[in-house]
Amino acid sequence: MQGVFVTFEGCDGSGKSTQLKLLTENLIQAGVDVLVTREPGGTKFGELVRRVLLDSSGPDRTCLAELFLYSASRAEIVQKILLPALREGRVVLTERFADSTTVYQGYAGGIPIEDIEIINKVATCGLVPDLTFVLDVNDPRVFHDRLAPKMKDKIEMRDDGYHAKVREGYRLLALRHPERIRLIDATLPSASILAILEESVWKVLNSKKGGRA
Amino acid sequence: MQGVFVTFEGCDGSGKSTQLKLLTENLIQAGVDVLVTREPGGTKFGELVRRVLLDSSGPDRTCLAELFLYSASRAEIVQKILLPALREGRVVLTERFADSTTVYQGYAGGIPIEDIEIINKVATCGLVPDLTFVLDVNDPRVFHDRLAPKMKDKIEMRDDGYHAKVREGYRLLALRHPERIRLIDATLPSASILAILEESVWKVLNSKKGGRA
Repeated sequence: MQGVFVTFEGCDGSGKSTQLKLLTENLIQAGVDVLVTREPGGTKFGELVRRVLLDSSGPDRTCLAELFLYSASRAEIVQKILLPALREGRVVLTERFADSTTVYQGYAGGIPIEDIEIINKVATCGLVPDLTFVLDVNDPRVFHDRLAPKMKDKIEMRDDGYHAKVREGYRLLALRHPERIRLIDATLPSASILAILEESVWKVLNSKKGGRA
Repeated sequence: MQGVFVTFEGCDGSGKSTQLKLLTENLIQAGVDVLVTREPGGTKFGELVRRVLLDSSGPDRTCLAELFLYSASRAEIVQKILLPALREGRVVLTERFADSTTVYQGYAGGIPIEDIEIINKVATCGLVPDLTFVLDVNDPRVFHDRLAPKMKDKIEMRDDGYHAKVREGYRLLALRHPERIRLIDATLPSASILAILEESVWKVLNSKKGGRA
């Protein structure tokens, strides 16, 4: 695969969207061909699934049903958007990918991790990120402060215990995949975080494309 | 598990719904505690997913995304409806279950059967029917005649080649699982089919519950 695949992960309210936006702007200014997508969603079908998943007034569902719904959206975006863009050599930045499922439905939701890993492998057609940033929030008040002003979705509405397990799950995952996951303290100043992101992305870009001037 | 789990499978237009209804009436008249459900759907969340799956004007999706959406609806109905009813000793009759996924998305859709079997196992929490009736239609005109008067859904709209593979898939599956799958010629007179269904169901009921007067 010629392209570079970068995913942004972390608790809700950890600042993923903001950092992804800043990184995108800087990469585009440096002349990089960037594609930005999101999960769940990113395709017509995926956005339909997203509505079913995140509608806060929707019916309750089991964690297992949730796992499969996320996988449906993922299978669609992998085949229709991500793989074609990566084959064209583009840099693809995605907010959330298979790691979110391992953490939210696995570590926090209680579905066996080995089941999730098999399902992730099928849903992603074997696609693994070159680089994954996990924005780690130590202080739960950050989460509350950031989410308070807007309407929370079905996942964000879950209790603090659930979100604490999410955080712990990401930390475990980072230990298991040090070759691609970079754990970043989300309470650092925004400019410092951006500097870490840029350095890491350029390292991968250079190693894949043979050096930047 | 004390209850008995019976699934109805077969091509669209093969007469599953009609036979399921007739069998249900006879079982209820004989004093059996019957629960009838359908897939996709059968729960509030499942019916939402059903709408996304079958809406003929909905966006196109990959076969893999479809597989996961069916699995989401299945995971929900297994945990919320089927397992509790079977634990209470009820007879559960369902139109379509995991075999539909193996056939429609696997044999006809081209997803590797071994991937589907793993996903089915997770989605069903390991639940396997005691008895599966496959209503087999040899003559494709039967399919056309039966479906013509009503609006076709997203799956029924697929071409004859797809539906021929579905039929072939069911026949292969019946060969692989002779211990639970009964292949029935759907062109037989309705009363003859019903007699076969009743005989098979009572055999399982008697073997599980220790004889009928």
